Amino acid sequence: MHRTKVRIVEDALDANNTIARANRDDFDRHDVRVLNLMSAPGAGKTSLLERALAAPLTGEDDGQLRVGVLEGDVQGSIDADRLATLHVPVVQLNTAGGFGGECHLDANMVRSALPELRLGELDLLVIENVGNLVCPAEFRVGEDARAMVCSITEGEDKPLKYPLMFRACELVIINKLDLLVHLDFDLDRLLYNIDAVNPGVRTLPCSARTGDGVPELRTWLAQLTSRPVAAAV
Amino acid sequence: MHRTKVRIVEDALDANNTIARANRDDFDRHDVRVLNLMSAPGAGKTSLLERALAAPLTGEDDGQLRVGVLEGDVQGSIDADRLATLHVPVVQLNTAGGFGGECHLDANMVRSALPELRLGELDLLVIENVGNLVCPAEFRVGEDARAMVCSITEGEDKPLKYPLMFRACELVIINKLDLLVHLDFDLDRLLYNIDAVNPGVRTLPCSARTGDGVPELRTWLAQLTSRPVAAAV
Repeated sequence: MHRTKVRIVEDALDANNTIARANRDDFDRHDVRVLNLMSAPGAGKTSLLERALAAPLTGEDDGQLRVGVLEGDVQGSIDADRLATLHVPVVQLNTAGGFGGECHLDANMVRSALPELRLGELDLLVIENVGNLVCPAEFRVGEDARAMVCSITEGEDKPLKYPLMFRACELVIINKLDLLVHLDFDLDRLLYNIDAVNPGVRTLPCSARTGDGVPELRTWLAQLTSRPVAAAV
Repeated sequence: MHRTKVRIVEDALDANNTIARANRDDFDRHDVRVLNLMSAPGAGKTSLLERALAAPLTGEDDGQLRVGVLEGDVQGSIDADRLATLHVPVVQLNTAGGFGGECHLDANMVRSALPELRLGELDLLVIENVGNLVCPAEFRVGEDARAMVCSITEGEDKPLKYPLMFRACELVIINKLDLLVHLDFDLDRLLYNIDAVNPGVRTLPCSARTGDGVPELRTWLAQLTSRPVAAAV
């Protein structure tokens, strides 16, 4: 019984990886770089994107980058509506069709949104995943890079409790830094815990509210577009 | 293909409900009332329990209630270690054995912990679920009641984005109220959104840090033990 379950799960992940590779081929063909952005609910993914994309990003050749957002939510279009007020194309993807609402995006869900995405008109696609610190880290969707937002209001112990998520990312954005003075929170301890589960990973302290760290985030996002195409998903 | 997936999911939920009923029978046989406590990561479940269980709870007959905690985490025993400093028995349940870490507790996981729980020595069992606003709401574990903790740092929109979780609970604890003055947060809007998805549900504003609302939470917990045994899971 247990072995059957493991095999079903492995088959599901195999199928997901196959579709993720197909997505990646489509992204590469259109020369679009893709970021999978993850976090717990309410960590501030949308607020950070609102700040970071408020003005156009600039590429290596000083040209304006064309950025799109794929909004993943169990239900509703609150975040997509917020981002639509910026000058970026936004496509909403709801996971509520699955069993009470899927807690993550998978490659097939992203694939279903591709026809709406107009990849030929984009340089960078940001996929805002469902707020969850477990399953989104398990499902590649064809992205080039993965980043997560960790809010300091969540406590210093989250890397130790959700290590796969912190290991899956190449950037950990530490948000809500403006609240540091009001919390019993030890930033050094969080940084220590992040480094313990993902040694050397880049961290970026930020405040979507004050804008601190947002220029660095904009630079990091823009640099994604100058990466060479890589075959591996 | 889709129909097969739906059937597998339905079978899994059926199996879960069967095991949940068996758990419930065991709880009833020992006259233990069980609370399933859920929230997003870092909303403050453990901090609230530390506050609420710091002194013994008192039952209807003014007798001291015997409370135990089942700690669900993907990995580690940080929360169980915190609670073990109180005078309550704590059993740790890690979900990391599943596929990269299960994002919720299910009835079978809880069942596997029953031999360690010494039900005969408890009046109330609090099951602290994995931090996640989606899947824990889909899996009954044999509990009598479900409550969730919603931190005001997560934003007012969470009931609209994760409606199943807010609908599944009979108490919504609104935590971190001490931060209200430091946030751009509209408490009335959160209450309005909670009522929109679960009309009339009881809400309890709290601060695990200052202790505001904790006496009311202690009363609510104690009252769970005076509920009559009900057959339905």
